[in-house]
Amino acid sequence: MVAQGEYTEGAPLTRRERMLRACRGGPVDRPPVWLMRQAGRYLPEYRAVRARASFLELCDDPDLAAEVSLQPYRRFGVDAVIVFSDILIPLAALGLHLEFTPGPVIHDPIRAPGDLGRLEGDLTEALAPTCDAIRRIRREVGADVPIIGFAGAPWTLAAYSTEERLSRDILAVRVLAHRDPAFLDALLERLADVTAEALRLQAEAGADVLQIFDTWAGLLSPPAFQRLAGKALARVLEALPSNRPPVILFARGATHLLEDLAALGPDVVSVDWRIDLAEAAARVGSNVSLQGNLDPVALHADPDTVRRLVWRIVEAGRKARGHIVNLGHGVYPTTPVEGVAAFVEAVQNGEGASG
Amino acid sequence: MVAQGEYTEGAPLTRRERMLRACRGGPVDRPPVWLMRQAGRYLPEYRAVRARASFLELCDDPDLAAEVSLQPYRRFGVDAVIVFSDILIPLAALGLHLEFTPGPVIHDPIRAPGDLGRLEGDLTEALAPTCDAIRRIRREVGADVPIIGFAGAPWTLAAYSTEERLSRDILAVRVLAHRDPAFLDALLERLADVTAEALRLQAEAGADVLQIFDTWAGLLSPPAFQRLAGKALARVLEALPSNRPPVILFARGATHLLEDLAALGPDVVSVDWRIDLAEAAARVGSNVSLQGNLDPVALHADPDTVRRLVWRIVEAGRKARGHIVNLGHGVYPTTPVEGVAAFVEAVQNGEGASG
Repeated sequence: MVAQGEYTEGAPLTRRERMLRACRGGPVDRPPVWLMRQAGRYLPEYRAVRARASFLELCDDPDLAAEVSLQPYRRFGVDAVIVFSDILIPLAALGLHLEFTPGPVIHDPIRAPGDLGRLEGDLTEALAPTCDAIRRIRREVGADVPIIGFAGAPWTLAAYSTEERLSRDILAVRVLAHRDPAFLDALLERLADVTAEALRLQAEAGADVLQIFDTWAGLLSPPAFQRLAGKALARVLEALPSNRPPVILFARGATHLLEDLAALGPDVVSVDWRIDLAEAAARVGSNVSLQGNLDPVALHADPDTVRRLVWRIVEAGRKARGHIVNLGHGVYPTTPVEGVAAFVEAVQNGEGASG
Repeated sequence: MVAQGEYTEGAPLTRRERMLRACRGGPVDRPPVWLMRQAGRYLPEYRAVRARASFLELCDDPDLAAEVSLQPYRRFGVDAVIVFSDILIPLAALGLHLEFTPGPVIHDPIRAPGDLGRLEGDLTEALAPTCDAIRRIRREVGADVPIIGFAGAPWTLAAYSTEERLSRDILAVRVLAHRDPAFLDALLERLADVTAEALRLQAEAGADVLQIFDTWAGLLSPPAFQRLAGKALARVLEALPSNRPPVILFARGATHLLEDLAALGPDVVSVDWRIDLAEAAARVGSNVSLQGNLDPVALHADPDTVRRLVWRIVEAGRKARGHIVNLGHGVYPTTPVEGVAAFVEAVQNGEGASG
C-alpha cells in the first residue's frame, strides 16, 4: 500500500495537470473529480438537446456532441470533459445495423466465423464526428482542461455484437465460449483491434486520457477473464503507441477481478462501490491508481449526506497511488442535479470548506 | 480451512442422509447434487405441462407443481427435489397484484409507509398449494429423498415489491435506502416475517432443507449489506424454530459478501462461479458448508467437458466443511438436456467411473 506523495508546490495545478498526475501517481493538491455519464438525461440542458436529436444523431454531430460534452463542465466545473459518444459507435461504423429503442439493438449480430469479415474496415471516417467533437471541445476549454476519450473493451463489444438484444446474463457470448472458443478468440482479436483503433484516433484528436469500458467483464470467473476479456485487453494495450495517454480501465461488478485488471498494466483501475477504496488500493498495488467509487444511487440523498460520503471516499482514496474521484457506475437519469453539484463541490472545496 | 470428514461406513447413504450431512458437515460417501431451476423450460416434459397452464396456475396447483418438481428427479435422479414455486408467491398471496409477462410485474408496488398494511396477513391459506405439493412429492419419493422448500430474502422481496417492473439495478429500493431509510427498515422487517413464515410452513409440510434466495444482495457494498439485507436475514433466521431444517443461503454475484453471508449462521452458503470453491471454503470458515458452483452456461458445452468441469468442482469442494454440488445460478432455458445429465452423472458416478 502506497500513500500518495504530498503536494508541496505553491501554485494550484491546472485541471489537466491534476488529472494526469492522479493517473500516474504524482503529487496533487486535491484529487480530480468527474462522473461517468456526466452528460446525460438527468440534466435539463441535455434533455433539451435530445428533444431535437436522437441519441445516434447526437453522437454523429460534432457540434451537438461537443455541446452536451461541455454541459456538465459549464454547470459543475468538473475536472475533466468526456467526449459524448457510445461504445457501440465503432460497431455501427463498421456496418452493423445498430438502433437504440432506447436500449441498443443490433439487427444483424455476428453469428458465425463467416461474419468476421463484416468487422473489417477503417474507422477513421466513421469516428470523424467523435474526433471532431474532441477538437471542438479543446477550442472551447483550452489546453488546461483534460479531455477523456473512450471505447468499449473487446469482451463487452463481443457481448453486444453476438446478440440482437443483449440478455441480462450476456448469454450468447458466454455460450460461444463453450461452443466455439476458436471463433470467439478470432472475434475478440478483431474487436481488440477495433478498440485500439478507436482509442488511437481519439488520442490523435487530442484526448488526454483514455477510458476502456469493460461493462460485462464482471460476469466472468478470474480464469475465464484471463483467457477471454483479459487476453483481449492486453492486445488493446499492446497495440497503443508507447507514448499513449494514461488509460483508465473500468469493469462493472468486478471486485473479484481487481488483481487481474491491475496486472494488465493500465494507469488507473476504476472500481465500483462494492469495495472499500483502501482495500482496493492494497489489492491493486503501487503501480496503479484508482478511480471511483460512490454508489451512483447515493446521489439521490440530500446534498449534506452526499458531501459526507464523498469526503469518506477522498479519505480512503489517499491509500491509493493516485485517485480520481468518480462514481462506481454512470449517473442515473433520475438523479437530482443538486446531488451531482454536491458531489463535485465536496471534492473541490474539501472537507474544511463545507463541513 | 477444514477438509471434510472421511466416510468410513459401509452402506451407501440415502439421498436424504447425504444431503443433511453435507449441509451440516458430516461424513458423506460423495457430495449430493441438484440444480437450481432444475424444473424448468430446458425440459421438454416441463414445456408440455406449461403448454396447458400459465406459470402462476402451475404454482397454484398442487398436482401440477408436484409433477414438475419431480420431473428432474425422474429423468436425472438428482439428489434433492425442490418444490416448484416462485419467491414472489407470498407477495401475491398477501394481495399484491402480480403477473408474469413473462418477467414479473407488480401492478401496485409498495410506495409509501401507508402501503405496509397491505403486507399484513396470514400466509397459511395462500401457501397451501406449495405445502400440498410438498406432501404430494413426499408420497411419491418416500422418506429417503430430501425435499427443498424455499423463499425469497427480505431485501430481494423489497426490491420486487417497490418497483412495477424491476429495473436492472433495482433502483427503487436502493433509492429508498437513501431517501427514506426508516420506511425501508419497516418494509424489510415486515418482509423478514413473510420470509420466515413461508419457510416455517414449508418445513411443517415436510421440507428437509430450506433455501433462501437473496438474488439482488450482490448489488450492495458490505456495509450496506450488513445494514439492510443482512440485518433482515438475521431476523428471518431468528424467527425460525430452533429445530429448523438446514438453511442454504444463496446470493447472486456476492463474492464480495461471502464473510458477511457466513457470519449470519446459515448451514450452507451457495456461491457462484466467480470464486474458486477452495478459496470460498477458506473465507467462510469451518462452521458453514458450501453449495455450487458451476457456471450454468458451461452446461452448453459437450458432456465430456461438463464432466471434467464437475470433477474439478467436486475436488475443490473437498476443502469445505461440507459440499452440495450445484450451479452458480439457475439452469438457462437454452441448456441441452445432455449437459444436465452429464452434470448429475459426473457427481454420482465419480471421476473413476467415467474418466
